[in-house]
Amino acid sequence: TGCAAGSRPATCSSWSAAEPSRTAQHRAAGPWGPPSSSPAMLGFESGRDDVLRLSPQTPGSPAAPRRQSKESSLTINCVTFPHPDIMPEQQLLKPSEWSYCDYFWADKKDSQGNNTVSGFEILLQKQLKGKQMQKEMAEFVRERIKIEEEYAKNLSKLSQNSLAAQEEGTLGEAWAQLKKSLADEAEVHLKFSSKLQSEVEKPLLNFRENFKKDMKKCDHHIADLRKQLASRYAAVEKARKALTERQKDLEMKTQQLEVKLSNKTEEEIKKARRKSTQAGDDLMRCVDLYNQAQSKWFEEMVTTTLELERLEVERVEMIRQHLCQYTQLRHETDMFNQSTVELVDQLLRKVDPAKDRELWVKEHKTGDIRPVDMEI
Amino acid sequence: TGCAAGSRPATCSSWSAAEPSRTAQHRAAGPWGPPSSSPAMLGFESGRDDVLRLSPQTPGSPAAPRRQSKESSLTINCVTFPHPDIMPEQQLLKPSEWSYCDYFWADKKDSQGNNTVSGFEILLQKQLKGKQMQKEMAEFVRERIKIEEEYAKNLSKLSQNSLAAQEEGTLGEAWAQLKKSLADEAEVHLKFSSKLQSEVEKPLLNFRENFKKDMKKCDHHIADLRKQLASRYAAVEKARKALTERQKDLEMKTQQLEVKLSNKTEEEIKKARRKSTQAGDDLMRCVDLYNQAQSKWFEEMVTTTLELERLEVERVEMIRQHLCQYTQLRHETDMFNQSTVELVDQLLRKVDPAKDRELWVKEHKTGDIRPVDMEI
Repeated sequence: TGCAAGSRPATCSSWSAAEPSRTAQHRAAGPWGPPSSSPAMLGFESGRDDVLRLSPQTPGSPAAPRRQSKESSLTINCVTFPHPDIMPEQQLLKPSEWSYCDYFWADKKDSQGNNTVSGFEILLQKQLKGKQMQKEMAEFVRERIKIEEEYAKNLSKLSQNSLAAQEEGTLGEAWAQLKKSLADEAEVHLKFSSKLQSEVEKPLLNFRENFKKDMKKCDHHIADLRKQLASRYAAVEKARKALTERQKDLEMKTQQLEVKLSNKTEEEIKKARRKSTQAGDDLMRCVDLYNQAQSKWFEEMVTTTLELERLEVERVEMIRQHLCQYTQLRHETDMFNQSTVELVDQLLRKVDPAKDRELWVKEHKTGDIRPVDMEI
Repeated sequence: TGCAAGSRPATCSSWSAAEPSRTAQHRAAGPWGPPSSSPAMLGFESGRDDVLRLSPQTPGSPAAPRRQSKESSLTINCVTFPHPDIMPEQQLLKPSEWSYCDYFWADKKDSQGNNTVSGFEILLQKQLKGKQMQKEMAEFVRERIKIEEEYAKNLSKLSQNSLAAQEEGTLGEAWAQLKKSLADEAEVHLKFSSKLQSEVEKPLLNFRENFKKDMKKCDHHIADLRKQLASRYAAVEKARKALTERQKDLEMKTQQLEVKLSNKTEEEIKKARRKSTQAGDDLMRCVDLYNQAQSKWFEEMVTTTLELERLEVERVEMIRQHLCQYTQLRHETDMFNQSTVELVDQLLRKVDPAKDRELWVKEHKTGDIRPVDMEI
């Protein structure tokens, strides 16, 4: 059935059971398409509870159940909960999962205590904050990219500097390679920064493109259902008041009949009874409509909060994955960096002062004929 | 002996042999203390050559050896070399070592061809250039240090940035560690830069503190010896001219004696012969002094160029060692850098969306009592 779950002293199962397809249709049209699990799959209890049927034909009887109702349930902000004194045994929809669908049924006073915030609003704020966090992480990565680019630029510039460029021989070769290695390092850091951008920053930003729009849609949808619930609650209250008046009228007229028995009065009593019965029927229809609306809201709350929950899992997994990508890129950067000095090390091992002297002497020698003593 | 090496048709071994201690003394007082090897150890040939002794008593004889001398030796810039036409077989002092002491005996015309530059000057320029290269390497390292400091500063600043600081749960912990890892990276790069300074830049700069002073001392010392050689060469030329005049005078007076025999003339011939003999002795002494000076210069050239050679080997080895230190520090930096992301990786592996939801729901839940149908 499409009704609210939990053990219920009174249900509208007879009416709501007549409209299962409408509810299902609505669910399918939700902002994220078909829900991942139907209420039945989630372990919703079906309406096998004891059904209390109201006989509108019994005058005065509407008052009695109402008093009973007042004891067994409690309507807060137009949502009807079981009465705290007669706490029904409710099993969580998704036990031990700390699922959003189980913990956000009540409204909450905001920090100033003036307005109430719905549980759903709190979940939405969590989603929006999560997205903000994701955006800030992307910004952080952006800053890191800038630092890497700056570092690479400086290394590259220093690499091209002419300092000690005239060093010669094997030492000169090792030195030239050391200078070149800075350009290699710069290359490694540039690659790091470019991969950071394509593999970390961009995915973090991309993910949230339609998110806010979806959240707003979602917000409006649930808010509309709450408004409908409120207006139907108002209708119930109005119908209840009307019934009370009709019952009072009927009672009065019945007492009048006992005093002076007349044909005209009997006619009026019949009329008053018909009107009272009609008011009872009205109330019944209003309660039915209210319960339908609450049922609809309930279902949408379950499917939507489950969807938000799924989105949050997705967000955490996705961020985790891209932060792992970050550490992976850092590792690779360190690895590639290692290799930039390997060639320098090789050439440093080949540095040979004797060889360098040979090269230099061959080029600059002035004469190897030694002086001899002068003869007279 | 302290004489110039090589096969010599005429030597001053008889005189120079009388002063071995003076030469040794001088060598010991050289700018770098005792030389690493004495000329004898370097394979200098001792003066076993055929010694040509001049008899000052034989008039006219000084001219004949001089003509012989002109053919067997050649004086360039006051330094006496074997004549190119009668090239003596000289073995290198340090064969197959391309030693400085073997290849810089002649002077060289400078690039404009106006002035001559001594071989020693060329070696000194090489030393000064080497030192300049070393200084420039230190400057290069200094620039690298600055780049590292700047990089570390930027990483550290970004690490303290508050972006996404409100991320919660296990993901929040991993994120906080990722941000902290930038401070660790900054630390690694700061350590790199500080070690670059103390273990690479500073040693490269320290090494050359007294170097220029030493080189100047050295330069002056060898230049003074060349000046002495020049003045003694001038004395030889002057003495040679005087002898020639005395010989001419004696010859003239001998011819006069043949024309008119008189007592007075015989007296004059005796006097002229005595003067000619004295001029021959003078020339002999001047040549001896010249050869002593050349011998001294030769020895100082050998010990000093060997010292410069040792210094250059030391320089190359020292630079090689500190560039190796640079690559070692780079390696270590990469290694330490690797470890900065290890803790991030650990915490990323622990990221658990379910756990994060539990923590959040526990803190923010509004109510787990589900709504129930309203009774009439």
